[in-house]
Amino acid sequence: MESKIQQLKLLLGEITDLLYAQSVLSWDQQTYMPSGGAEGRGEILATLARLEHTRWTAPELGRLLDELEPAAQNWDPDSDDACLVRVARREFTKRTRVPNSFVGEFARATALGQEDWVRARQASDFSIFQSALEHVVDLRRQYASFFAPYTHIYDALLDDFEPGMKTAEVQTLFEELRGEQVSLVKAIADRPQLDTSFLGLNYDEAAQWTFGVDVISRFGFDWQHGRLDKSAHPFTNSLGFGDVRITTRPILNQLGSAMFGTMHECGHALYELGLAPELARTPLAAGASMAVHESQSRMWENLVGRSLPFWKFFYPRLQKTFPAQLGKVGLEKFYAGINRVQPSYIRTEADEATYNLHIMLRMELEIALMEGSLAVKDLPGAWNQRMQNYLGVTPPDTARGVLQDIHWSIGSIGYFPTYALGNLVSVQLWEKVRADIPDLDAQMEQGQFAELLGWLRSHIHRHGAKFEPQTLVKKVTGSPINAKPYLRYLKSKYSSIYGL
Amino acid sequence: MESKIQQLKLLLGEITDLLYAQSVLSWDQQTYMPSGGAEGRGEILATLARLEHTRWTAPELGRLLDELEPAAQNWDPDSDDACLVRVARREFTKRTRVPNSFVGEFARATALGQEDWVRARQASDFSIFQSALEHVVDLRRQYASFFAPYTHIYDALLDDFEPGMKTAEVQTLFEELRGEQVSLVKAIADRPQLDTSFLGLNYDEAAQWTFGVDVISRFGFDWQHGRLDKSAHPFTNSLGFGDVRITTRPILNQLGSAMFGTMHECGHALYELGLAPELARTPLAAGASMAVHESQSRMWENLVGRSLPFWKFFYPRLQKTFPAQLGKVGLEKFYAGINRVQPSYIRTEADEATYNLHIMLRMELEIALMEGSLAVKDLPGAWNQRMQNYLGVTPPDTARGVLQDIHWSIGSIGYFPTYALGNLVSVQLWEKVRADIPDLDAQMEQGQFAELLGWLRSHIHRHGAKFEPQTLVKKVTGSPINAKPYLRYLKSKYSSIYGL
Repeated sequence: MESKIQQLKLLLGEITDLLYAQSVLSWDQQTYMPSGGAEGRGEILATLARLEHTRWTAPELGRLLDELEPAAQNWDPDSDDACLVRVARREFTKRTRVPNSFVGEFARATALGQEDWVRARQASDFSIFQSALEHVVDLRRQYASFFAPYTHIYDALLDDFEPGMKTAEVQTLFEELRGEQVSLVKAIADRPQLDTSFLGLNYDEAAQWTFGVDVISRFGFDWQHGRLDKSAHPFTNSLGFGDVRITTRPILNQLGSAMFGTMHECGHALYELGLAPELARTPLAAGASMAVHESQSRMWENLVGRSLPFWKFFYPRLQKTFPAQLGKVGLEKFYAGINRVQPSYIRTEADEATYNLHIMLRMELEIALMEGSLAVKDLPGAWNQRMQNYLGVTPPDTARGVLQDIHWSIGSIGYFPTYALGNLVSVQLWEKVRADIPDLDAQMEQGQFAELLGWLRSHIHRHGAKFEPQTLVKKVTGSPINAKPYLRYLKSKYSSIYGL
Repeated sequence: MESKIQQLKLLLGEITDLLYAQSVLSWDQQTYMPSGGAEGRGEILATLARLEHTRWTAPELGRLLDELEPAAQNWDPDSDDACLVRVARREFTKRTRVPNSFVGEFARATALGQEDWVRARQASDFSIFQSALEHVVDLRRQYASFFAPYTHIYDALLDDFEPGMKTAEVQTLFEELRGEQVSLVKAIADRPQLDTSFLGLNYDEAAQWTFGVDVISRFGFDWQHGRLDKSAHPFTNSLGFGDVRITTRPILNQLGSAMFGTMHECGHALYELGLAPELARTPLAAGASMAVHESQSRMWENLVGRSLPFWKFFYPRLQKTFPAQLGKVGLEKFYAGINRVQPSYIRTEADEATYNLHIMLRMELEIALMEGSLAVKDLPGAWNQRMQNYLGVTPPDTARGVLQDIHWSIGSIGYFPTYALGNLVSVQLWEKVRADIPDLDAQMEQGQFAELLGWLRSHIHRHGAKFEPQTLVKKVTGSPINAKPYLRYLKSKYSSIYGL
């Protein structure tokens, strides 16, 4: 068995290398590639993805897993090797259920979908995107059928991003959130709105950059194993084990954008940088799920970066960086300002109180599309109706409505819920962190984050993708993913800020 | 046959993509990769190289070539398809003659060789490197044996870099050069030396950078399809078809270093950027050989960049950039200064009159090592003796002697001659250029290079790797590679500068 597991690691190591190679090419594409390189780059990436897929579906891999599994029954189920066999089997099974012809058609349909979406959004004209989206929806329904029988057609899609999680579980959680969050947003709307005009003054972009570097350095971002670069849309990518890169984009008259964006991506990066070295060059060297990953980015962005203790340390520094803009703005006013609640059209700009509502709306529409109870042509109307119900606003056009996100155009139906789940997990973990580190606030007020990072490393990061998200969250907090901590957090935070 | 050639292009397209992926990873490694990424990066690159090799030696490729070749006999031998079949056969044959076990051993030996070489050079102690080099030499002898019977054991090595070229041809050319160049250098040494102290003043690195960008923009470097970045050692790399990147490194008190280095790399890049679009995603989308590639870099660096007409246009701009350093240095003095001849220890710093002598010395030692007439342990002595004979200097230590170049440590025995051949080809082409563009000097004096670049594109660049170097040079100039133009050029240039 020892040599069989070595063979498995050899195969998976090659697959991991192919994945990292794609990450390097993709990172380069979004940061430094000259525009004329785009066409050829697409072909190179497609070749690497095809080679990776071929290896994931190789009969040789299936045979190895068949041979290993009987022995693996007797291994400690939490051991690296047992988890590796389990995770490899899962991916092998998922991949081999999908015919190669489908993989090719899906790649073409989503390439076209993305093109049409870009044009549709520019023109704010949903009809340009409609037929491409109909094709994508049809293919995602077909994809689900490869995993029949299922309890819910959406299960197979969700499972791509949240291993093992079921649609019904998420619906129950969202049901609990919806009413409470809608009420909270309404209660806040009845209070006088906060003045945040100071956040829209001109803030030198290089100075924003330097401030962001200072913050994430104190968070523990390791510059020997990471970089921060500029890109149109911020992202985090592991280009190899121990080579984790993040991007950001300072905007002159939006102080919050790059500042919180950089902390957010740093949260993702700290997760990848904290993986146990034993997991290197295996599929376990990754986050447990998109939601768990998002819990890390949201924790550093919101629970740390939008907290009062954090700003007790950093606000004097920020004022020193921007004396003309912030010299006369007090800490309390600044803290309240960066936490302003304001229903808006755009998900990526949403505050903590409204964000999940954007997500629920999307998941409900996705489920209706998959179930066939909603036609693609009726999406814009259904979108606007829910926006009005949940947030009390109606987008002025489809560019700021149903066309705002790239996800559907690239086939990522099933992805959105992970953002809201990430928020829930972040606070659920945070309550445990606070119990384990009673003086956390005092540490943050000193700009000290080492104990927090150490806690996350030992409880979350080092495990990588060894456990399914629900298993991991339960292991760490004693309960599966739970909406109550998040609701407690929102109510407490906004009661104090808005005097509810 | 139409579908067979499409199949061939499909296979070769995948191989080309794997090669480009390696280029992206290698470029990143030398420019932006954080140091902690090095270990993992090596593994990813090894995996991609292995996958590329497997495809080059696939029986499927051999069968396709067997089927295509009878038909290809009837095609125009200069057509893209005929050349593609020929070049693919050449690579397939070379690769399949070498056992996989050898490929693995060579990779390990050269990885170790490079490590030992770095340590040896740092300590200036050849003995640290000796046994690794003995292994490399032994493996290169073994490599040659896979291509027996041969006229000369060095032929197989040379052929890796100069397809179709024979050791005897190079020896004849170098024989003709050696005496003349040694005499020329001696004659120059008898003349009063030029003052070049102004080149060693402090030159702001950012201003050097901007000046270099201005120069290569006027050369025709296409920023939509290329980039200029910093790296420890300058290089050019194609990261895809139409994505060609160069690097440079300004040094504060060496004005010439980055300036001529940038022009040199730009020359390489213009070649790659001028390949015919029909050759994209095939092995023909490359230079004809290392020597032909070097002819392009040396042409822009030396025949353009170290010429008086070039500086008639650019020197006033350079003076404006650096008034304190160059305001009082006249054009003639500057021009003479950047062309100073001074025998020195280091090849990469050698001037045009001495450069080839550094190369001849290396090739002679390589041949002696391959023939077995020189033992590795006797290399340092043999090196110093030739340095004294050819250049009249003896290196003070092995770091500045036999240990100065990386090439042998990475197994590139057979590569050095291409540098000198590149010099010869550059001037041979240049004589033809001047005949075809009689007012070239006047154009350069106006900072105009479009007609020159157009000539190079239509005569050299667009052909890519369709023809062997000797075939291409003969097609364009009417003669195979010839030493006389280079000797004429040297004598004329230095007679005027040194008043010989």
